[in-house]
Amino acid sequence: MTDYSVCVIGAGLSGIAVCRALDRAGVPFVCVEREDEVGGMWGQAGTGRRGPGYASLHLNTSKRLTGYSDTPMPADHPTHPSHAQFTEYLRGYAKEHGLLDHVETGTTVDSVRRDAGGRWTVVTRDSGGTPATRTFSHVVVASGLHQDPRVPSGHEGFTGEVLHTIDYHDSARFAGRRVLVVGFGSSAVDVAGDLTRVAATTLLSVRRGMHVTPKRLYGVPIDEIADEPWYAELGLDGARAFIQRTLWTIHGNLTDYGLPEPDHELFSAGLTISDTILSQISHGLITPKPAIAGFDGPRVTFTDGTSHDVDAVIYCTGYAPRFPFLPGHGPRDATGRMRLYQRIVAVDSPGLMFAGIVRPVGAITRIVELQSRWIAGVVTGEVRLPSASTMRREIAAYLAGIAGQYGADPYSTVHVDFAAYAASLRPDRVS
Amino acid sequence: MTDYSVCVIGAGLSGIAVCRALDRAGVPFVCVEREDEVGGMWGQAGTGRRGPGYASLHLNTSKRLTGYSDTPMPADHPTHPSHAQFTEYLRGYAKEHGLLDHVETGTTVDSVRRDAGGRWTVVTRDSGGTPATRTFSHVVVASGLHQDPRVPSGHEGFTGEVLHTIDYHDSARFAGRRVLVVGFGSSAVDVAGDLTRVAATTLLSVRRGMHVTPKRLYGVPIDEIADEPWYAELGLDGARAFIQRTLWTIHGNLTDYGLPEPDHELFSAGLTISDTILSQISHGLITPKPAIAGFDGPRVTFTDGTSHDVDAVIYCTGYAPRFPFLPGHGPRDATGRMRLYQRIVAVDSPGLMFAGIVRPVGAITRIVELQSRWIAGVVTGEVRLPSASTMRREIAAYLAGIAGQYGADPYSTVHVDFAAYAASLRPDRVS
Repeated sequence: MTDYSVCVIGAGLSGIAVCRALDRAGVPFVCVEREDEVGGMWGQAGTGRRGPGYASLHLNTSKRLTGYSDTPMPADHPTHPSHAQFTEYLRGYAKEHGLLDHVETGTTVDSVRRDAGGRWTVVTRDSGGTPATRTFSHVVVASGLHQDPRVPSGHEGFTGEVLHTIDYHDSARFAGRRVLVVGFGSSAVDVAGDLTRVAATTLLSVRRGMHVTPKRLYGVPIDEIADEPWYAELGLDGARAFIQRTLWTIHGNLTDYGLPEPDHELFSAGLTISDTILSQISHGLITPKPAIAGFDGPRVTFTDGTSHDVDAVIYCTGYAPRFPFLPGHGPRDATGRMRLYQRIVAVDSPGLMFAGIVRPVGAITRIVELQSRWIAGVVTGEVRLPSASTMRREIAAYLAGIAGQYGADPYSTVHVDFAAYAASLRPDRVS
Repeated sequence: MTDYSVCVIGAGLSGIAVCRALDRAGVPFVCVEREDEVGGMWGQAGTGRRGPGYASLHLNTSKRLTGYSDTPMPADHPTHPSHAQFTEYLRGYAKEHGLLDHVETGTTVDSVRRDAGGRWTVVTRDSGGTPATRTFSHVVVASGLHQDPRVPSGHEGFTGEVLHTIDYHDSARFAGRRVLVVGFGSSAVDVAGDLTRVAATTLLSVRRGMHVTPKRLYGVPIDEIADEPWYAELGLDGARAFIQRTLWTIHGNLTDYGLPEPDHELFSAGLTISDTILSQISHGLITPKPAIAGFDGPRVTFTDGTSHDVDAVIYCTGYAPRFPFLPGHGPRDATGRMRLYQRIVAVDSPGLMFAGIVRPVGAITRIVELQSRWIAGVVTGEVRLPSASTMRREIAAYLAGIAGQYGADPYSTVHVDFAAYAASLRPDRVS
């Protein structure tokens, strides 16, 4: 008889994958989800509720690789589905595979603590505020990377509206207004593109040059290219040369668009994925600006000395993962970097694992599926974890390697190299 | 003393170039313009008046080569300015160079006839309907290619709304409606892209595969590439291979987007210029369909057997040039093809010339400037026309060559090869 049972926190793309793997492995589990339905940020996007999604959000990766491997997305969905289509798919998947019976929606996690006997006590509250306390052998945190909005300081002197992407739903209320979008990630360029429909002016403050790629190269979705065996065989240097040449054919130098050139090699930081940003700049719909030097009343001054009056500033400056319910807010080192063996296991908290806390180049789904099966294996004992000291050495080696490729930004520490990481989680690697 | 004077018909991009050249050559001229201001289709676009422009219209060619060679567009204008920016530039140009004194706005041309003495009688009406009759030594028609909307027949059984691009201004009144756009030229993809903002569904019926290019390759506007000496040296075959390879890197096969592959080689027909159409298809914002098989009530059936209910059909099926004021509606052969020596001179109507009746690959402006100087040379006698029979042979050779490259579609007969044509009009070729 099994003496294990698992609490999965979050029923988005990652949480559903974990539920599916546990269910297939015959592991008893409960999944708690804050929202009223499964779907995570994808489901939030259409509702107008606060969150990282927004009305115009589409997948940046292909439906083939972003959908789960055992259930393709509908044939009549486009290559890059909308959040609504993807949410419908996620909910259909959870239902079709009998996962909904295990999911408690409208349920918030207050605390997750390990007791002296090594079991985990999870305190939750339902939508009516009624608390519940249960114990589990394992807890899998799958609440995603988009929790804590990162808002820079320095806008105290600004008299206009200030918000972060987490509070952006659509462009409607910015009609006729002068808006400054800050950031150059995929959300920043999506939001700026949105605003061009209605805003009087759309400025985009870009502090750091980033490599920009459309969602397809050679007609092939970029995640499908990254998934090709021949691509993996190129190695990092070969892939850099190949993709760099391809991007140069497509858009030439980013300085020709008034953007800073990237200050780093390709794949040494995230890519900005957009089919439209460079065209919108070419058409004068978005005006790129450098970093902000200061605010004074309605006026924003940039580091090139130019200044503009604006009505609103939208910080699309990303998120940090946040785990307020965990002891010490989760396993991090002094600089904030997540310390997880195989990006999954909290070494000093046996039984605590994480799913989906990675940023691959490519779709996250295959990664999370592999993580989920590996997690189920850990729970059933099929996967045996090495000693704590071995796991700590793996973490140290990973963080050093990541710092070498990406720099020491704590938020970079969840980058993984798709092919190598996937290989390390494949069943034949399970000891 | 001069015994010549010229009537220029139309004060758009082409007409203004003709006025400028005549003015510089000291030729007395009058320019009649139907609208209340100069600017042609660019000026019409912002007003909501019927015409080939629409609110979202931007240049497909670069500001550097689309602006006149003696007066650059403002440095703070984007690479691909909006119609409003371009109109402002055109009007500023006409004013700055003292051309406005020669332009009679709000003036319609009723008829243009050659009298027995060889002079041209032009009958116009001002905005109040008052007619005026004047004679000139020469008439230069610069009224553009976008006069007669081409609307296919066959939609008699359709109960929804039917319109042509000429009656399309913006997407607002299509909010929440199911719209079918017919065509795959640059206007069709612009209009379909517009509609995605608000329409319930946007279908795009594409009968014939066309090559699709973004406005920039390697970051360089396509018209600036076409203007490079090294590009001209590639020759037609070399240019085809180079551009085809570049486009394949960018978008792969068009069938991967549900579009027909082109049924012709690159540069054997116009290019569809769009930065966005393929991305919008990838995102499911536009659904490509094949040719229309029939209409029945609200239902449209396509040649692949699929059918959809739609509320409106917008034919973005192009224009034919129209010259109702000319004898025989202009110099055409039995199939409708324009018969013009050097694409300018109506051989059988001495003194009648045309400007801007060409479709180069690249911006039309340099071509029209060269045409305009050449036209001024013909008027002043600096350029001597060869005998009528020589001119007829040149026309026959041109039409045969065009038929070889583009096929016999009468609307293809205004295509010109930029470099070769420009060379034939350069001052050193003026006899």
